[in-house]
Amino acid sequence: MTTTNQQIQHYLTKNEDKARLLVSCPDKPGIVSSISTFLYEHGANIVESNQFTTDHEEGTFFLRIVFASENMKSKEETMKADFYALADQFEMTWRMTFLHELKRTAIFVSKELHCLRELLYEWESGDLVTDIPLVISNHESAREIVESFGIPFYYIPANKEIREEVEEKQLDLLEEYNIDLIILARYMQILTPKFVDSHPSKIINIHHSFLPAFIGANPHKRAYKRGVKLIGATSHYVTDDLDEGPIIEQDVIRVDHRNSVNDLKKKGRLIERSVLNRAVKWALEDRVIVHKNKTIVL
Amino acid sequence: MTTTNQQIQHYLTKNEDKARLLVSCPDKPGIVSSISTFLYEHGANIVESNQFTTDHEEGTFFLRIVFASENMKSKEETMKADFYALADQFEMTWRMTFLHELKRTAIFVSKELHCLRELLYEWESGDLVTDIPLVISNHESAREIVESFGIPFYYIPANKEIREEVEEKQLDLLEEYNIDLIILARYMQILTPKFVDSHPSKIINIHHSFLPAFIGANPHKRAYKRGVKLIGATSHYVTDDLDEGPIIEQDVIRVDHRNSVNDLKKKGRLIERSVLNRAVKWALEDRVIVHKNKTIVL
Amino acid sequence: MTTTNQQIQHYLTKNEDKARLLVSCPDKPGIVSSISTFLYEHGANIVESNQFTTDHEEGTFFLRIVFASENMKSKEETMKADFYALADQFEMTWRMTFLHELKRTAIFVSKELHCLRELLYEWESGDLVTDIPLVISNHESAREIVESFGIPFYYIPANKEIREEVEEKQLDLLEEYNIDLIILARYMQILTPKFVDSHPSKIINIHHSFLPAFIGANPHKRAYKRGVKLIGATSHYVTDDLDEGPIIEQDVIRVDHRNSVNDLKKKGRLIERSVLNRAVKWALEDRVIVHKNKTIVL
Amino acid sequence: MTTTNQQIQHYLTKNEDKARLLVSCPDKPGIVSSISTFLYEHGANIVESNQFTTDHEEGTFFLRIVFASENMKSKEETMKADFYALADQFEMTWRMTFLHELKRTAIFVSKELHCLRELLYEWESGDLVTDIPLVISNHESAREIVESFGIPFYYIPANKEIREEVEEKQLDLLEEYNIDLIILARYMQILTPKFVDSHPSKIINIHHSFLPAFIGANPHKRAYKRGVKLIGATSHYVTDDLDEGPIIEQDVIRVDHRNSVNDLKKKGRLIERSVLNRAVKWALEDRVIVHKNKTIVL
Repeated sequence: MTTTNQQIQHYLTKNEDKARLLVSCPDKPGIVSSISTFLYEHGANIVESNQFTTDHEEGTFFLRIVFASENMKSKEETMKADFYALADQFEMTWRMTFLHELKRTAIFVSKELHCLRELLYEWESGDLVTDIPLVISNHESAREIVESFGIPFYYIPANKEIREEVEEKQLDLLEEYNIDLIILARYMQILTPKFVDSHPSKIINIHHSFLPAFIGANPHKRAYKRGVKLIGATSHYVTDDLDEGPIIEQDVIRVDHRNSVNDLKKKGRLIERSVLNRAVKWALEDRVIVHKNKTIVL
Repeated sequence: MTTTNQQIQHYLTKNEDKARLLVSCPDKPGIVSSISTFLYEHGANIVESNQFTTDHEEGTFFLRIVFASENMKSKEETMKADFYALADQFEMTWRMTFLHELKRTAIFVSKELHCLRELLYEWESGDLVTDIPLVISNHESAREIVESFGIPFYYIPANKEIREEVEEKQLDLLEEYNIDLIILARYMQILTPKFVDSHPSKIINIHHSFLPAFIGANPHKRAYKRGVKLIGATSHYVTDDLDEGPIIEQDVIRVDHRNSVNDLKKKGRLIERSVLNRAVKWALEDRVIVHKNKTIVL
Repeated sequence: MTTTNQQIQHYLTKNEDKARLLVSCPDKPGIVSSISTFLYEHGANIVESNQFTTDHEEGTFFLRIVFASENMKSKEETMKADFYALADQFEMTWRMTFLHELKRTAIFVSKELHCLRELLYEWESGDLVTDIPLVISNHESAREIVESFGIPFYYIPANKEIREEVEEKQLDLLEEYNIDLIILARYMQILTPKFVDSHPSKIINIHHSFLPAFIGANPHKRAYKRGVKLIGATSHYVTDDLDEGPIIEQDVIRVDHRNSVNDLKKKGRLIERSVLNRAVKWALEDRVIVHKNKTIVL
Repeated sequence: MTTTNQQIQHYLTKNEDKARLLVSCPDKPGIVSSISTFLYEHGANIVESNQFTTDHEEGTFFLRIVFASENMKSKEETMKADFYALADQFEMTWRMTFLHELKRTAIFVSKELHCLRELLYEWESGDLVTDIPLVISNHESAREIVESFGIPFYYIPANKEIREEVEEKQLDLLEEYNIDLIILARYMQILTPKFVDSHPSKIINIHHSFLPAFIGANPHKRAYKRGVKLIGATSHYVTDDLDEGPIIEQDVIRVDHRNSVNDLKKKGRLIERSVLNRAVKWALEDRVIVHKNKTIVL
């Protein structure tokens, strides 16, 4: 279906000679020198580079490099193979992604469509560079807009009682479509540990509050009761603990005494849309690193 | 001491013919009509007016009116006396304040002076219209700046064990100086219910987190651990429940993985200063109404 | 077409007994008293009230009151007729709008659809309370989404040379459809004084810069060149002077050296959407008053 | 005087083994590799690194590296000497600064002290790492606070007529005190091209508007007239064109119809303080690079 997304086709053409290297390892002298020399020797030029070293006695070093090389596709296998030695030397955890390949992202949605719509329009405009092979929902309301984008829509009704059954169908689809990233775009069903653990740091959720305030259901009702002057939304990776996973991005919007619970929900939706989109974009750009239940966004 | 604050003197002269009326009562037809007619008949013109009706079946009506009249001082007693009948008719809770009289505000501070400084400079510039008859602290560090403004400084060392003894001294001073409003400008001692209950909705605190997140001590440490992307500060009226009182104002500032706990404290201080100042300014302008453990700021 | 907009139907039902009174006149004692007494005597209760007096020697007074009365529809004519005397007495400029009647809003759009989409979705959700009888465009790209909402779409190609001819067609349509408000949702054709003057304070534009910076075409190119760290969008009433009309709302978003001109356009679009929506919503709620080429938003 | 600034002493001790390298040159493969290898071979470890390549056909490459090495002081001369060859090879413009040495910053101020105060307090808290050998003013109002920090204060009255005479005295002082950076903290005298050209990219000004809007005098008056909904402040390097120099940082604050020109000035001051502080802090941390009359802040 992405072949119908002209903007992304255009992006792929423009970036087919680019790749990204993500590295984390114990900090020590010589890492940047070795990696940049490695790239130079393989005929690659650094386009963008961001790093961070955590501030402990034995710090952890994180690096995200974007590099370019003529005929990158032909060098792909060699570069990956050659990098192993360097990675071993520095005990690196690493991955190389090549920009001519698209990640495959599945979206889950329930009744509220505002986040889904925002994602689809940003995807259509080429801002979210990914394949969206399918959208899964426990309601029918999203079918029309999803299919208008030429994306397969799967309606799988769900509730607490049949949770495992539902997830089995979902997991089968995710495997069949070879999904890299799952976005819960106001998908309101709670996922079991089994589901979550099969996709570590691969499920991005948007929670309709400013975490860690108002974890769980009906955050706006509780925000209203508490009389806060700002409400928010938080995008995070899903873990086994509800709403406790590493936060990727958050934002707030001002409210006051004139706002009813419904007004809070309405204002909240504006923030949920932009926060989820930023988090997804950064994840697709390989900018988000998880470390100690927090994120480093390079 | 305020006679040395020229800006406030100037304000008093400019506003000596003004007064404020604060009203709350069960909503019903005729309130605004009766009050505005009352003012008109007493030769007063409405300068500013803000109202709010809560959205329940039997709504509560809140009103803040600023009005002006030539020779207001001479009318003061009559207006107050005459208003009682109207107030009874509508079962109003009300008060009239006259702008030629200054509120008397005491500030409590501990070691960190950033909030105190901000208050004093804003007071000096005439932005906070009040007398500041004294500052109380459990440390000596604030003495120099407080006395440089010609304000009496009282050093009363405090700790958990001697809490009641300390508060007795403080309460005596507050009574002696006839204090209307108490500001805890990063005053780190917890007040007993006895103290709090003697000043309902009269003690404004600044808590160094975005409530209800990170209630209690060391919020920055916990914010750091949680990996939030925004930290904040909250100004609220103190109640018997620590950090649970009605929120007057809040704000946030962006942080990221590069910020240590110390950085969070530093950034937080910027927000604490402005949030506390806004809350105090609104309270001094009689804009803050407490209702169901929340605030309506008119 | 609005009969298909269930949210708005719901709103109309809920608010059919409400009305709004907008007033401006020279400030003097007795205005609020007279108006509120007038409402009381006509069996109306004040639901919401906001006023402002400009700070000159002969100040101008502005008021927006929302009031409710059982069987408002039956009282409509009487209330309007009776108000004339009061209005004369105070030399008021005024209007009364009744919430059971919808305003009729036309949208103009060119190639970029992001603002139009945002308006349509907010309208669909009931947040923008209005009829949208038609959308006019000089491109075909908006046809699909507009017609998907059941709204008539008129394609009228335009360019500098045939401006008057084009506007004649447009003006005919606006008259035929009895339009109250015109929104230029990134409509890129410049309107002639003839068009503008026929709709004073009735044409809301969204300009893709933070006015008064970067008036005219290609603001992002110039913002990029200047190296600003924030770009913005401004919603304003159209006057004969390009981008000089009264500003209704503005907002900004942060940018930096990594952002190309295209990135600025992309970020700008996020802000254009929300700024235009807020301005339109306030205008539909009769909150926007024009005074001395500025706006007072009550 | 900095020997009395304990926070900065503490910083110096903690960072005496650190240094910064700033580089700009035509982009080509091998730059990062060469530099990082150079550092590695000189026994230095990279602590922080940020780079940016401009997006033209012949891009310009910018790099800011913070590196650490035991006994940095003893290596200083060698490192600088050895780097020349590498710099030549890549046609680099570069500089190495060593963190045990403080920059020497002079502050100019006129009547309004809010920016100066903010700078002094942030300096006192260790947040602005620099010597402040002197403050120059054309008024006496700042003397008290400047001298309370143990900093020499020079009162040099100024006006348009005696501009050259005044600047001669100022330039003599700046040379005598060996000043690296000049901050105009609401210094209201316009500097001549002679003065400006003697300190290219070394004079940081805070302009009390959101540039490029309201260049020149009385911006708040004009902002008020235009009816903007946000006002701002801009920190920039001074060039020969008034308020046209490269922007380092900007920010805005919301205003509305209730705000008089004085209110705008008051709100503006809050923003001027924080914007100037951020710009100065980044400049002191060697994060600000000037390129094509814009800044890249790494």
